[in-house]
Amino acid sequence: MNIYAHGVAIVGVTGYAGQELERLLASHPKIQIAGKFASKANEKSGAEAFSFERLRGFSADAVVLATEHELSMQLVPQLLDAGYSVVDMSGAFRLKDPQLYQDWYGFEHTAPALLGEAVYGLPEFRAEAIASARIVANPGCYATAAVLPLIPLYKADAIDPGCTVVVDGKSGVSGAGRQPKPETHFCEVNENISAYSVLQHRHTPEMVAQLPGATFDRFVFTAHLVPISRGILNTITLRTQDRISAHSILAETYAKTPFVQVLSPGQLPNVHSVTKTNLCVIGTVARGDNTVIVSVLDNLVKGAAGQAVQNLNLMFGYEPTAGLVS
Amino acid sequence: MNIYAHGVAIVGVTGYAGQELERLLASHPKIQIAGKFASKANEKSGAEAFSFERLRGFSADAVVLATEHELSMQLVPQLLDAGYSVVDMSGAFRLKDPQLYQDWYGFEHTAPALLGEAVYGLPEFRAEAIASARIVANPGCYATAAVLPLIPLYKADAIDPGCTVVVDGKSGVSGAGRQPKPETHFCEVNENISAYSVLQHRHTPEMVAQLPGATFDRFVFTAHLVPISRGILNTITLRTQDRISAHSILAETYAKTPFVQVLSPGQLPNVHSVTKTNLCVIGTVARGDNTVIVSVLDNLVKGAAGQAVQNLNLMFGYEPTAGLVS
Amino acid sequence: MNIYAHGVAIVGVTGYAGQELERLLASHPKIQIAGKFASKANEKSGAEAFSFERLRGFSADAVVLATEHELSMQLVPQLLDAGYSVVDMSGAFRLKDPQLYQDWYGFEHTAPALLGEAVYGLPEFRAEAIASARIVANPGCYATAAVLPLIPLYKADAIDPGCTVVVDGKSGVSGAGRQPKPETHFCEVNENISAYSVLQHRHTPEMVAQLPGATFDRFVFTAHLVPISRGILNTITLRTQDRISAHSILAETYAKTPFVQVLSPGQLPNVHSVTKTNLCVIGTVARGDNTVIVSVLDNLVKGAAGQAVQNLNLMFGYEPTAGLVS
Amino acid sequence: MNIYAHGVAIVGVTGYAGQELERLLASHPKIQIAGKFASKANEKSGAEAFSFERLRGFSADAVVLATEHELSMQLVPQLLDAGYSVVDMSGAFRLKDPQLYQDWYGFEHTAPALLGEAVYGLPEFRAEAIASARIVANPGCYATAAVLPLIPLYKADAIDPGCTVVVDGKSGVSGAGRQPKPETHFCEVNENISAYSVLQHRHTPEMVAQLPGATFDRFVFTAHLVPISRGILNTITLRTQDRISAHSILAETYAKTPFVQVLSPGQLPNVHSVTKTNLCVIGTVARGDNTVIVSVLDNLVKGAAGQAVQNLNLMFGYEPTAGLVS
Repeated sequence: MNIYAHGVAIVGVTGYAGQELERLLASHPKIQIAGKFASKANEKSGAEAFSFERLRGFSADAVVLATEHELSMQLVPQLLDAGYSVVDMSGAFRLKDPQLYQDWYGFEHTAPALLGEAVYGLPEFRAEAIASARIVANPGCYATAAVLPLIPLYKADAIDPGCTVVVDGKSGVSGAGRQPKPETHFCEVNENISAYSVLQHRHTPEMVAQLPGATFDRFVFTAHLVPISRGILNTITLRTQDRISAHSILAETYAKTPFVQVLSPGQLPNVHSVTKTNLCVIGTVARGDNTVIVSVLDNLVKGAAGQAVQNLNLMFGYEPTAGLVS
Repeated sequence: MNIYAHGVAIVGVTGYAGQELERLLASHPKIQIAGKFASKANEKSGAEAFSFERLRGFSADAVVLATEHELSMQLVPQLLDAGYSVVDMSGAFRLKDPQLYQDWYGFEHTAPALLGEAVYGLPEFRAEAIASARIVANPGCYATAAVLPLIPLYKADAIDPGCTVVVDGKSGVSGAGRQPKPETHFCEVNENISAYSVLQHRHTPEMVAQLPGATFDRFVFTAHLVPISRGILNTITLRTQDRISAHSILAETYAKTPFVQVLSPGQLPNVHSVTKTNLCVIGTVARGDNTVIVSVLDNLVKGAAGQAVQNLNLMFGYEPTAGLVS
Repeated sequence: MNIYAHGVAIVGVTGYAGQELERLLASHPKIQIAGKFASKANEKSGAEAFSFERLRGFSADAVVLATEHELSMQLVPQLLDAGYSVVDMSGAFRLKDPQLYQDWYGFEHTAPALLGEAVYGLPEFRAEAIASARIVANPGCYATAAVLPLIPLYKADAIDPGCTVVVDGKSGVSGAGRQPKPETHFCEVNENISAYSVLQHRHTPEMVAQLPGATFDRFVFTAHLVPISRGILNTITLRTQDRISAHSILAETYAKTPFVQVLSPGQLPNVHSVTKTNLCVIGTVARGDNTVIVSVLDNLVKGAAGQAVQNLNLMFGYEPTAGLVS
Repeated sequence: MNIYAHGVAIVGVTGYAGQELERLLASHPKIQIAGKFASKANEKSGAEAFSFERLRGFSADAVVLATEHELSMQLVPQLLDAGYSVVDMSGAFRLKDPQLYQDWYGFEHTAPALLGEAVYGLPEFRAEAIASARIVANPGCYATAAVLPLIPLYKADAIDPGCTVVVDGKSGVSGAGRQPKPETHFCEVNENISAYSVLQHRHTPEMVAQLPGATFDRFVFTAHLVPISRGILNTITLRTQDRISAHSILAETYAKTPFVQVLSPGQLPNVHSVTKTNLCVIGTVARGDNTVIVSVLDNLVKGAAGQAVQNLNLMFGYEPTAGLVS
């Protein structure tokens, strides 16, 4: 019999990320789901829309938002005022500069004052700040799979500054959300591959912001939709300088992290390597100054709900792996 | 009622490319399938193994090899000696330098004297040479989808020489051939994405050889397997110099070609755009000096059998589109 | 150079069946697409909504409705009044008894007077009536794959009257239409199989009506959705009486039909056997009195647009195969 | 920290069922994997072939065979002689009558004396016999999904004896095993549906044997391959007699079983309902005397490895759900 120490309310529980979070927390030894809300009233699922009145009736210490950025931007200030900690899975608080929201998201941010306070929730690099944060911006799925291998290389000044770092991302369809759209219709996705949001994808500024020294001019991210339900595979091509070994840097950085694994040189992970786990697995191949890095994760776990649980564990002071390994 | 003017024998008719060629030639107005052979005797399909004795019994003007490169390397010299023209769909005669076969294929070429004579069968650029060739090396599928957009840019000196051109290819499973292997088992491919032959893929030297000014040091091709049966999508990332527009060059080059189409700037093709057609469709997106090009084709048609028919049309003097549009 | 002898207008050209019809008629030697309409104004596709005013501007001899049954029921009387022949691909005119629309479709038919006149458009059995019809009700996809093998057996009194004929249908997702719905979202269909409309599927009364002697009590049809885009496979289980061979009856019935093929006893077709063709292929296996029949077709071709072209050929007096074989 | 009470050796650990068993036992609170063998020496996986010498070095109380029936038939007598309990996942010991092996499997059984002793390992109905068995024959995947809904109906005499019970099974590709074969090649399975072993499937005699009153003449099972990796959906069509409600019987029978669930009348499960669980979920729809039952399970869990763990739990005296719920 578990004795739960903290309660969490989920908003957006009918979407794919919200469902995954519900699944993960259901077997968490310390965190209980104190309440659940749909993004809007959803007759079919029976989930009710969010209201503060209902929220106050639950014994929630934190609220996780599995919502679109519009709703997140609206709810976060009110939730903080009401004393709740928040983990936001949308992109609404991932960027520091409000101008980037105009440039990449096409809207004016309505809570710019909170952008500075929000902590980018990448546990491998922000553990301390996350532990004391009121508002954690859970990273994007493509971004997580890109910055985990790239942060150590930028920090070590391992990348030839004259090269353009190219991140070619391929994602499963659950990343596009549960709302039926022409582009998620089975017949449009099946037997198809497509690139989308080319040179305009919203995860780009998020990646650049996390990489010390990266610039939009020397960083290109391209997203692709492939006919799988879950999973992301990022192929990263770059030039190292001074014959630095990207593999050595990565292997050392992640020698002891529970959720990031670096394979032996020349070995590469595939999407099956990580399905339904909170792992990000990284492989590298080098030839001369050219290095190709392949990183994979499950977009709904390490790319969304699993990383949210990692963040909750840090915020509540639990073991990093609590609720994340069977 | 058609009156066939030329006969063609196919070797390797039980594989995916061989089958596709059979399908295409079945409705060709001028070329008749004079004879069919399996690569080796195939009990189940009833196709017999190749023999010169049987070949002589057919009224074939040319032989198309839909065979592995080992068999192609062995048969081509004998077929030329016997007076047949040959279109070889394997990689055995695509490279000029025998050393590249040691480096990238891992074998010593047994007919190096013919490498110089063999014409790389890319009709959009080698029409004249193909028309008079005895031996045409039909290009690789990934290579076709890469060099069609890149040749014009390299020729125009449009690419920043300091940049690494990155070709990120994604292919359907038919490209791996019909022979059952662990990596083509449905359960291994389904719900998976994987990179393979990273920095070692045999289409790389083929691409570099076609691109004037390209070097292995500044050219990276990565192949990926995705769970579709047919189709290739190549995502090409490069920097242009002097603000040259890649789109303008491509649109001009391919203004009148029947099988290469260039979309309006910012528009991108997907695999469905080309399924079961002989088209290669190209889209471009630019931001500053960065350009992303997406090119798609059906690996069994423009990437194999359809391109072989284009080559036969040139060799026999027919319309470029004969047998290739319904 | 073709000289078109008849013009056809298509309503509902943005749906999957409408698109397929457009594709087929584009290469028909005698029938020209005189005009195209969306079911409703569709900004994205640029297709305009149907209007009689626009229709009168086209030189159309017949109108094919690739529309929902509500719209078909509304348009057909007006189109007939205006002098057009109609092929309706919806279910609105397939049943004779208006009560069946209340029972199985849940609505009151608004043009019951035309139900008697409408000809069920199964060319293999209704060629003469179709040839002189003003309104042809194009059969349902599951129904076509069920009644083609079953009509000859019921007619020959081959089926044990005490047995329940069980039709277990499996269909690709294009059968559910192009409108995005939760149940056609890639992530809901992928890695899933589901039965739907069990004992309530609207194709059931259509099948029973075509089978002399069949009753709802002794006929069960179950529909299933499987993760493919195109194709239907019906597995039909029944008992024959007097040791009659179902295979013999079927082989004889379809000895000379261009689009229905019966395989040798024990041989079975699969969906690949018919993809993108207008064929219905039938296989049988028998053991004692039990017979299992497997019939396959492409739901968008023989199950919809291809059969509509067959009907148009009959109505206009062309060869049965015109526009249907390459 | 777990203290393991029993050890199990697995033979055939490189196949899909063997892998799944390894995955399940890895988190079992009481049973430890004492040793692992491949069916034959497997270089790539590093798994060694079975030998008694190596087995004796492990502290195994029982051996689970995830092997082909030929190897099972050979090993079981020797393992019993050596004092091990055995759970055999092959079909080698599921039938009582040796003649059925000649009729349906095409071989002469080499250990017919053990067929009488072997217990059919369906925990919901044989718990007591399994608990004291030396040799448990783990049921087939299709068979489990068929007999769980049908045993209670046959026992209650609910089925019209004049009707033929029709079981239409659809399975994912992992059921065909891991060995690459033409029929499991991605390109053959993708966008395809096929029926196989029609009226000859080996699970048929297994089903008939478990169903009191069933006869081969009045029972037809048809297996189909669909493009998913895991899962079985059986659609069962039958006539009840005396207006007996199949739903009531099933709901009552399975009111308290942890792994068999019966949905409300008219509600139907799909494959997603059970993926990666040990559940068999059953739904029913009735109209007059006709009843359609849909039952689903994960062929690798309740249809193989999970059911083997259920059997081990019974044999070792653990909770039924030990190691099977997270």
